[in-house]
Amino acid sequence: MDLGFSWQSLRVELERMATAVAWEAAKPLVIEEVEVAPPQKNEVRLKILFTSLCHTDVYFWEAKGQTPVFPRIFGHEAGGIVESVGEGVTDLQPGDHVLPVFTGECKECRHCKSEESNMCDLLRINTDRGVMINDGQTRFSINGKPIYHFVGTSTFSEYTVVHVGCVVKINPAAPLDKVCLLSCGISTGLGATLNVAKPTKGQSVAIFGLGAVGLAAAEGARLAGASRIIGVDLNPSRFNEGRAFVVVSAKKFGCTEFVNPKDHDKPVQERLIYAFNAQVIAEMTDGGVDRSVECTGSIQAMISAFECVHDGWGVAVLVGVPNKDDAFKTHPMNLLNERTLKGTFFGNYKPRTDLPAVVEKYMNKELELEKFITHSVPFSEINKAFEYMLQGESLRCIIRMDG
Amino acid sequence: MDLGFSWQSLRVELERMATAVAWEAAKPLVIEEVEVAPPQKNEVRLKILFTSLCHTDVYFWEAKGQTPVFPRIFGHEAGGIVESVGEGVTDLQPGDHVLPVFTGECKECRHCKSEESNMCDLLRINTDRGVMINDGQTRFSINGKPIYHFVGTSTFSEYTVVHVGCVVKINPAAPLDKVCLLSCGISTGLGATLNVAKPTKGQSVAIFGLGAVGLAAAEGARLAGASRIIGVDLNPSRFNEGRAFVVVSAKKFGCTEFVNPKDHDKPVQERLIYAFNAQVIAEMTDGGVDRSVECTGSIQAMISAFECVHDGWGVAVLVGVPNKDDAFKTHPMNLLNERTLKGTFFGNYKPRTDLPAVVEKYMNKELELEKFITHSVPFSEINKAFEYMLQGESLRCIIRMDG
Repeated sequence: MDLGFSWQSLRVELERMATAVAWEAAKPLVIEEVEVAPPQKNEVRLKILFTSLCHTDVYFWEAKGQTPVFPRIFGHEAGGIVESVGEGVTDLQPGDHVLPVFTGECKECRHCKSEESNMCDLLRINTDRGVMINDGQTRFSINGKPIYHFVGTSTFSEYTVVHVGCVVKINPAAPLDKVCLLSCGISTGLGATLNVAKPTKGQSVAIFGLGAVGLAAAEGARLAGASRIIGVDLNPSRFNEGRAFVVVSAKKFGCTEFVNPKDHDKPVQERLIYAFNAQVIAEMTDGGVDRSVECTGSIQAMISAFECVHDGWGVAVLVGVPNKDDAFKTHPMNLLNERTLKGTFFGNYKPRTDLPAVVEKYMNKELELEKFITHSVPFSEINKAFEYMLQGESLRCIIRMDG
Repeated sequence: MDLGFSWQSLRVELERMATAVAWEAAKPLVIEEVEVAPPQKNEVRLKILFTSLCHTDVYFWEAKGQTPVFPRIFGHEAGGIVESVGEGVTDLQPGDHVLPVFTGECKECRHCKSEESNMCDLLRINTDRGVMINDGQTRFSINGKPIYHFVGTSTFSEYTVVHVGCVVKINPAAPLDKVCLLSCGISTGLGATLNVAKPTKGQSVAIFGLGAVGLAAAEGARLAGASRIIGVDLNPSRFNEGRAFVVVSAKKFGCTEFVNPKDHDKPVQERLIYAFNAQVIAEMTDGGVDRSVECTGSIQAMISAFECVHDGWGVAVLVGVPNKDDAFKTHPMNLLNERTLKGTFFGNYKPRTDLPAVVEKYMNKELELEKFITHSVPFSEINKAFEYMLQGESLRCIIRMDG
């Protein structure tokens, strides 16, 4: 990728760089000059070139119910270039093209050593922590006042400091304005299907929730050669274009059929809507789909996603993050009849080990990323990205750091 | 195996054979002379040599809550020899050594064609049906009065008629008084571990419920090379011998540790006992076991078995049959943290395809079956087998049909 400058030219006036600071919950971000300290042991300082907005940023920015950590720099889907490395960093060097990731891979803990897990003990996502793990301090400040980190990435900043275990070195030919999407939502949905649900060619897959993660799960089903991809969403505009605020047609993502739970029962209770919905899907598919992927976080959608898979071989995968007090509830015979229920975190990808190959899938034109990008704004207009998402107008809005 | 007679000598006076008839619920069986009709299309008539008693026989004989189907011939764990075959049966012939199985494999339906399922559409267990599927009639009668079948096997009879899809041809050298156990409980537990939980060498496995099925699951963990096998049972005598009614020591089955939920909390509520128990196991194993297998059917044990597996890679497998009104309930974050919950039926073995290899595991002295056999009685004393089980004295009682 031609970036129009050499990495050597980056080492200038790093101390005060433009950053979008969230001073308090749910208030517009303010572009500020922030001091970005040098990387410490096992840390890397990155120049962010492109970042995008994910629901998780919005969720913690709204801070409804969570411990508020402010002032804070949000952002965790991004692509950039290594500007400098701290002590002990041997496998990255200035100029490397990278994706920062909100969860890491230390390569030393039981999880990293397990073939089955990507939930690194050292660098697993921690949304409450606003500091670096090396010294418990922030690397961001304004006149000595600390500004807190978010999930170890804080990519709404020209420069940021990230633990080396959360930095994925990728093919420098990959366009960072596209592959930046792989550092969170798209990999989460894609991996949920490809790594966890694992449909075989010709199988049927139901996707619950047609936001970016769900559509990425549908993209995974398309890549796996699914014969039927059934999209389930309460918002009919997400399947067929035609309403003013529609952002995308799920058909573009390979969905062959659409179920709107609201069409199938009186909307008296969400529970009933979804329960009926599982039955509708079972009827559409001679007993149930082969695989399902739940990307809404609604507990009733989770139950429905599980109960709509076929007995004998059906696998349901949970991706959406539930509310604190939710309870997953089903009759145990649904399990005894040889259904499998699994959850996944970041699509079961080990970030440093696995993401470079996902980037290659894009480079080989197997994986389509462009269709996820509905908007693009310069950094100075970052608050517009929040508006698009809050109004349900965007799937992904790319924020260009040079603007 | 030397049976002391040739199969050719069997074809004598088949019309009236000794059978143990359950005339009504929970009343002792009565040995009667019963007419056993010839096998019809796709059926096989078997001479049963050895049968054993399983909890499922007792459960339906007690008929608490189920639709009572009487008079009925129980029995479904057995070994025998093909006496004659009906029209269309080409892969079995008189003299073949076989295990009848309560669930079948038609080899034609979606389940049989799926690599993942053993829940044959045609021959899946049906506990309410007391007749053959070919004509909806029984093959057993006394003076014209029909006597009903049980799960398509009815092995408490010198002769029985079984659908060919429920008959497994095995190595004729295998001792039927041992391998008869493989036609139900032992395969169920063994397969739950080997085929579904699939622990790798050195992993830890918790087994909930140390009856025959649970101990077979422990035997599977031993065969898989588990480093720790943690037995969980409310009855301490099941782990260490020492009480009058003890039937077996779980240590013989490879269990390395034992947890009695009652030891770890005030026995106020079963729910609390088991919840605490999951925590105890997590503490014993640095965050949880790698695999668990639930063989009690208690809903609280199921939840505990799920919640005691390690995040990132833990797999919990449900085997025990729950009550009609039970609900499996857990916080969805337990799933999102990359735990897997699965159920299994007959250890995921496809009976005709897979059981011959399990018999070979016994023949090769990998699999131990003798330790499951705690009692043996002649057919004339079949009611003693019921007493041993009801009093918790037996794991498996072999019933010798020649006695």
